[in-house]
Amino acid sequence: MVTYQLKKSPGVPLYEALYRCLRADILAGTLSPGQKLPSKRALAQHLEVSKITVETAYNQLLSEGYIRSQEKVGYFVESVERQAVPSPARVSPPEPQPSWLLDLTGSGTEQFPFSVWTRLQREVILDYGEKLLLPLPNQGVAELRSAIARHLTDFRGMQVDPENILIGAGTDFLYNLLMQLLGRDKVYAVEEPGYGKIRKIYAAGGVRCVSAPMDDQGVLPGPLGGADVLHCSPSHHFPTGLVTPVGRRLALLDWAGAKKWIIEDDYDSEFRFDAHPMPAMQSLDRQGRVIYMNTFSKTLAPSIRISYMVLPPALMARFRQELGFYSCTVASFEQYTLARFLSRGYFEKHINRMRKFYRSRRNALVSLLETCPFAERLTILEQDAGLHFLLKVDTDRSDQEMRALLASAGIRVHTLSEYYHDSREDRHCLVVNYAGIREEEVAEALNRLENIM
Amino acid sequence: MVTYQLKKSPGVPLYEALYRCLRADILAGTLSPGQKLPSKRALAQHLEVSKITVETAYNQLLSEGYIRSQEKVGYFVESVERQAVPSPARVSPPEPQPSWLLDLTGSGTEQFPFSVWTRLQREVILDYGEKLLLPLPNQGVAELRSAIARHLTDFRGMQVDPENILIGAGTDFLYNLLMQLLGRDKVYAVEEPGYGKIRKIYAAGGVRCVSAPMDDQGVLPGPLGGADVLHCSPSHHFPTGLVTPVGRRLALLDWAGAKKWIIEDDYDSEFRFDAHPMPAMQSLDRQGRVIYMNTFSKTLAPSIRISYMVLPPALMARFRQELGFYSCTVASFEQYTLARFLSRGYFEKHINRMRKFYRSRRNALVSLLETCPFAERLTILEQDAGLHFLLKVDTDRSDQEMRALLASAGIRVHTLSEYYHDSREDRHCLVVNYAGIREEEVAEALNRLENIM
Repeated sequence: MVTYQLKKSPGVPLYEALYRCLRADILAGTLSPGQKLPSKRALAQHLEVSKITVETAYNQLLSEGYIRSQEKVGYFVESVERQAVPSPARVSPPEPQPSWLLDLTGSGTEQFPFSVWTRLQREVILDYGEKLLLPLPNQGVAELRSAIARHLTDFRGMQVDPENILIGAGTDFLYNLLMQLLGRDKVYAVEEPGYGKIRKIYAAGGVRCVSAPMDDQGVLPGPLGGADVLHCSPSHHFPTGLVTPVGRRLALLDWAGAKKWIIEDDYDSEFRFDAHPMPAMQSLDRQGRVIYMNTFSKTLAPSIRISYMVLPPALMARFRQELGFYSCTVASFEQYTLARFLSRGYFEKHINRMRKFYRSRRNALVSLLETCPFAERLTILEQDAGLHFLLKVDTDRSDQEMRALLASAGIRVHTLSEYYHDSREDRHCLVVNYAGIREEEVAEALNRLENIM
Repeated sequence: MVTYQLKKSPGVPLYEALYRCLRADILAGTLSPGQKLPSKRALAQHLEVSKITVETAYNQLLSEGYIRSQEKVGYFVESVERQAVPSPARVSPPEPQPSWLLDLTGSGTEQFPFSVWTRLQREVILDYGEKLLLPLPNQGVAELRSAIARHLTDFRGMQVDPENILIGAGTDFLYNLLMQLLGRDKVYAVEEPGYGKIRKIYAAGGVRCVSAPMDDQGVLPGPLGGADVLHCSPSHHFPTGLVTPVGRRLALLDWAGAKKWIIEDDYDSEFRFDAHPMPAMQSLDRQGRVIYMNTFSKTLAPSIRISYMVLPPALMARFRQELGFYSCTVASFEQYTLARFLSRGYFEKHINRMRKFYRSRRNALVSLLETCPFAERLTILEQDAGLHFLLKVDTDRSDQEMRALLASAGIRVHTLSEYYHDSREDRHCLVVNYAGIREEEVAEALNRLENIM
């Protein structure tokens, strides 16, 4: 008869322990197919457990198909033998990141109004209560969509109907949704140079992606011939910092005409330093071809996963018709909290504070660069916008050599040439993200560079 | 000279008002291309505003490309005239849902441990502080992945390495990710009958989708020949409630062999009423072909958007290699809160309470059905699992007539035939979701039906 040492262990009842032993033996073939199991009473006596313990274990095996019962005869092993299940192979965790003296590729979070945010979270819980648990409208909750529409009017001069706003957990997700909405048979043009992740997302989404060449005003409409969709960031291009003037914006709208689409990625338009941010292309669009897109992950914190897009009315109708089965991807708690954060003016205050903060960070960096021993070999290229600038370096070194040299000094930085997809030409230009830096790190980094530049 | 009534209004500075007037005139063609604008001083005197107001407005127009300046000559309108931007067309909000006496299609949320959840939220904020703002690992935070792995071991008997877990904002999102990971050229088999949304998601994702016919044990391996991926829910099939016995599970694993994939959708395995939930196919998988998937939206609340999948190690390696650029879609706050909810045992308690709660709800419903005047025409088909059962009705009416009849009595219910994709045959079977119902509603509904059944 089968014999097991059934130990009492916390959380595992005896019947469960017996069930596991029997199952393992059946899967391993120790109990062979067709074999009759001992009667419940006999096994209970043999193992010194109660009959109900054996009965529960047998019933579990029965319901899962490991054994079958034949009335008035007994229980028989089913034909399910297998080798023992091996313990799962390990995947190693992702490589830890090396630590840098100065990281010019990151973003900053230190100014986030943490106490306001958490206070609003508590308020939302008290005010909404169990309403927070209800299924979400798939476009996002009405309160947040209204708050975003008002914000876009006040801050960006846009006329937006909250019904045309779609909330999603990050722009990656929204790009994927757009490919389904606009069509996978379409050709998507992305800026060259540009933010490489966009191209990766389109490639992973299985659509054809082409380069949209740029001049000093932004994307050129001429070479866009074969594309159906243009993905661009006219308010502040990454990595060049270019701001597309209104004439070029209108030319691109002409290109779109009544049949093509423009995805306007407005991801850091809030951080324009001189006057107001440049009005969005969406405001100039008379034919309903511009999809406006923005995110709070950049302006608040990367761990807050809330992005949104404003669809032209016809496209929103198509979304409801064809993709309305999708559930919203952002939790209700976060949506209501952000709605209050916007509608009570905290977001605007935060942006203003951040703008000043980044401005002074930028100025400190610039004056360190202007007074460093190799200052005459550096030129800053910028257009008063965003959280980065280009730093042109007068050097004979290749961009790859320059990156290696800087890395050896503990400085992490990307070169402009890395953002080109079709060309590997050296550009002798660094892309300096200064949102996450500290002055003393910069000073020390420049010291280290003095001897090797 | 241009004349505007510049009114002071809250939130709109004078220069902004002037800028908007000028911009509108330029876009409308009232100020024509090449036309010289008045000097800053002249316009300031004319409008009785300060020179700095005009200067700021001009600078804004300049930086946006509406005007250009010629040194020592003045400002000129650029060639950007357009018709005025029309106010955006309205999309009507989605149709409001009719209100039903009894809705047998919904889910319930009323037992959610709201106070525990919000207490944990506060704790997380206090304990983690600004760490909550840091960029998230794209698989999800380690704490939550560990807590899920432990939960799967304790509750589902699964051996899971937290490194193989991927967190996402809902299963819709994860299915889309899987199509990119497994390949869009693959053929995906979905259960027939089955949950229609799955098929819609695969269709929207642009992959070929075929039906996987079922018998009374679940999906049949034989007809799966042409498929590369099987999407199934062996623990509790929707809508039939079928539980696939272990023999069939092993046969499906044999079908998968070393080249095909099985997506095991385990979405409501927690709500098994008799013994423990049936072990997952993932536990029987020796060749790394099963992708296990589950969600907390079903067990906690639909507004909590946290789902996950357990990938075989080789597939996780492929994710990191090919799709590692994607950002995580769930906010850090929610991830840490859920991690504590799981690791402190609240989730298990919640599930146990829910199971009892739903059990008594089911029993109340069943006894009302068994004692109603047309009880002899009703047969309940179920397998002690999940939050719904099938109700076979002895009737000559078509399913469509039956639905219309029930709707006229204020009862919202789906028929089994709606879940078939390839056949419109009447099944005379109702799919009764009882998670969200109340006893008095059922009693009243049965009263109404007495005369029309």
